[in-house]
Amino acid sequence: MQTKLHPEMNADSRQALAAAKVEEYMATIKDVANDAGVAVGTVSKVLNGQYVSAKNKKKVEESVAKLGYEMNYYARGLRAGYTYTAAVIVPDIRNPFFACLVSSIEKELYQKGYKMFLCQSQKDAEKEAYYLKLACQNRVDGIIGVTFNDSEKQLQEKIPMVMIDRHLENGCCCVSSDNFHGGELAVRRLLAGGSRRLLFVRTGSRLSSETLKRGQGFAAECQRQGVFYATADFGDDTDVYPLGSIEKYLLAHMRDGVLYYDGIYTSTDALALVVLELLRSRGILVPQDVQVIGHDGLKRMNNGPYLLSSIVQPVEEMARVGVRNLLGLIRKEAVEPLTILPVTFAEGGTTRKV
Amino acid sequence: MQTKLHPEMNADSRQALAAAKVEEYMATIKDVANDAGVAVGTVSKVLNGQYVSAKNKKKVEESVAKLGYEMNYYARGLRAGYTYTAAVIVPDIRNPFFACLVSSIEKELYQKGYKMFLCQSQKDAEKEAYYLKLACQNRVDGIIGVTFNDSEKQLQEKIPMVMIDRHLENGCCCVSSDNFHGGELAVRRLLAGGSRRLLFVRTGSRLSSETLKRGQGFAAECQRQGVFYATADFGDDTDVYPLGSIEKYLLAHMRDGVLYYDGIYTSTDALALVVLELLRSRGILVPQDVQVIGHDGLKRMNNGPYLLSSIVQPVEEMARVGVRNLLGLIRKEAVEPLTILPVTFAEGGTTRKV
Repeated sequence: MQTKLHPEMNADSRQALAAAKVEEYMATIKDVANDAGVAVGTVSKVLNGQYVSAKNKKKVEESVAKLGYEMNYYARGLRAGYTYTAAVIVPDIRNPFFACLVSSIEKELYQKGYKMFLCQSQKDAEKEAYYLKLACQNRVDGIIGVTFNDSEKQLQEKIPMVMIDRHLENGCCCVSSDNFHGGELAVRRLLAGGSRRLLFVRTGSRLSSETLKRGQGFAAECQRQGVFYATADFGDDTDVYPLGSIEKYLLAHMRDGVLYYDGIYTSTDALALVVLELLRSRGILVPQDVQVIGHDGLKRMNNGPYLLSSIVQPVEEMARVGVRNLLGLIRKEAVEPLTILPVTFAEGGTTRKV
Repeated sequence: MQTKLHPEMNADSRQALAAAKVEEYMATIKDVANDAGVAVGTVSKVLNGQYVSAKNKKKVEESVAKLGYEMNYYARGLRAGYTYTAAVIVPDIRNPFFACLVSSIEKELYQKGYKMFLCQSQKDAEKEAYYLKLACQNRVDGIIGVTFNDSEKQLQEKIPMVMIDRHLENGCCCVSSDNFHGGELAVRRLLAGGSRRLLFVRTGSRLSSETLKRGQGFAAECQRQGVFYATADFGDDTDVYPLGSIEKYLLAHMRDGVLYYDGIYTSTDALALVVLELLRSRGILVPQDVQVIGHDGLKRMNNGPYLLSSIVQPVEEMARVGVRNLLGLIRKEAVEPLTILPVTFAEGGTTRKV
């Protein structure tokens, strides 16, 4: 139990703090009406810019200023049928890609006068479903989500919803980057840097998702170029750590300290860092012996230089389009069901100069 | 304008999607009452576990099941004077330390049945003040914040508020880690590894904050140990990037490629990474020539190995205590005004083994 109080906090300030019930400290519209000696409806009209007599308008404005009355936007929204709130659902905000995405979404929502509920599903179907339900119960105007457990299917026809990187068969609005072209681009860059035996490594859910196209683009481009390639999919069971199965795979393809593949493309930057660590721990030089390209375009501390050579997702643009589409759905406008934004390649020290 | 519709989205499903007003799709308590042929008050009593006749109880329960009625927890909260919502304010969620903190806070709030508004102040006094005000207007039960612009002063007596790493004179509840001891610990570890001329480098706001104690602990321990030391404070104007002024400082203290200092402690891991990059670009070996210790204890992708040797903040514990104290304030209990949680040292490759 914590009962000791800081010496600087005297009884009065403590009492004030403790008594600070949200309901109590704000002047209400009734207080304004009482103070001005007018009806509540008159105050409401003034606040909403409707006509009242100049005399009453002045009275109300004076009382508003005197009492420091602030419109309860939430209540106003409820009356209009809107909450000006969006729920954002991601698996884990600690993942730097999601941190960047959520940061950009928050900035976009803020600009549009919207607030953000943040929900972490932690890839837990139950928590995800709980949050989706809660989002509706609390009457958010819409949801932007990166979800993995199909729980959104039950809700997408009930509430405006934009999915990031997940395009459902039944047409829920989705914003993604060009994952397929990302795979192609990686192959071209590895070949340009001199690699001849390419490997694609991925981890993560095998649920239908736009991100699966990274490997598809990789394979298609390898076939087109007639280059030797292999793909290794470690699925969901292998999270980035522990890295046992990836290490085992790489070791099985090494002989006398030389890896059979000389160019590696990974489904995420996080995975690329694991691969880089494994290669370096075996004395394999990057990019001299093996070139490595990740996917996401993460930067050091999310604002420094690129962590490694990578296919860069246009995360700010994804947020911008995602929020724009969500607001469109809320306003009952038709929006593009699937938007695919262009990716780029960024050199980050793990590929040879070309 | 985006008007093209996905072929898989037929007119019916589009219409259903567009028509999905939040207000419209949920069975209301009135629908349940109508369907059961009882009064709204009777439904309410059943939902709240109060006594009604067995016959009416059965009717209501059947209608609830039939209509898929779900309690509107928000409305229930409003009636009880609570929203079960907390606002969390951080400067930038892309900063990995804040991402970890927010992630932990979300998990704690979720366990307590609370939802989270996430607000990024971006160190913008206006945006910060806007969010604090909005948090009150929307009647959140409380606020957990890492704020920098003193704007919280106007609100802390109006709404339950817990500050992370910021202890205001007037006693707003604060949760912090032992920054002073972190500085001491860094000095001891640098000395144990053989360093003799120590440098503390910091960036960031010079506003009164618990984090200023990192440098104070560093200086105190250097004095106690009788070791040569210097501190360099680059303030707010130098964000981590650009690194011009830090580079200039280090160059001014180098001669023939040797840095005058052989042990560096930085106020954050982000800053340490910049220092490491500068040292390495000048051919200075870490930890052979210079040992470097950061502060925060960040991990690669926030779940891998430590990025570098660092003073580790107990971020999960900070979130746990922060949420516990906030809920205490909401319940009008007395809480510890200042909680300081212990830090630890983690070896991460930039200090010599001892």
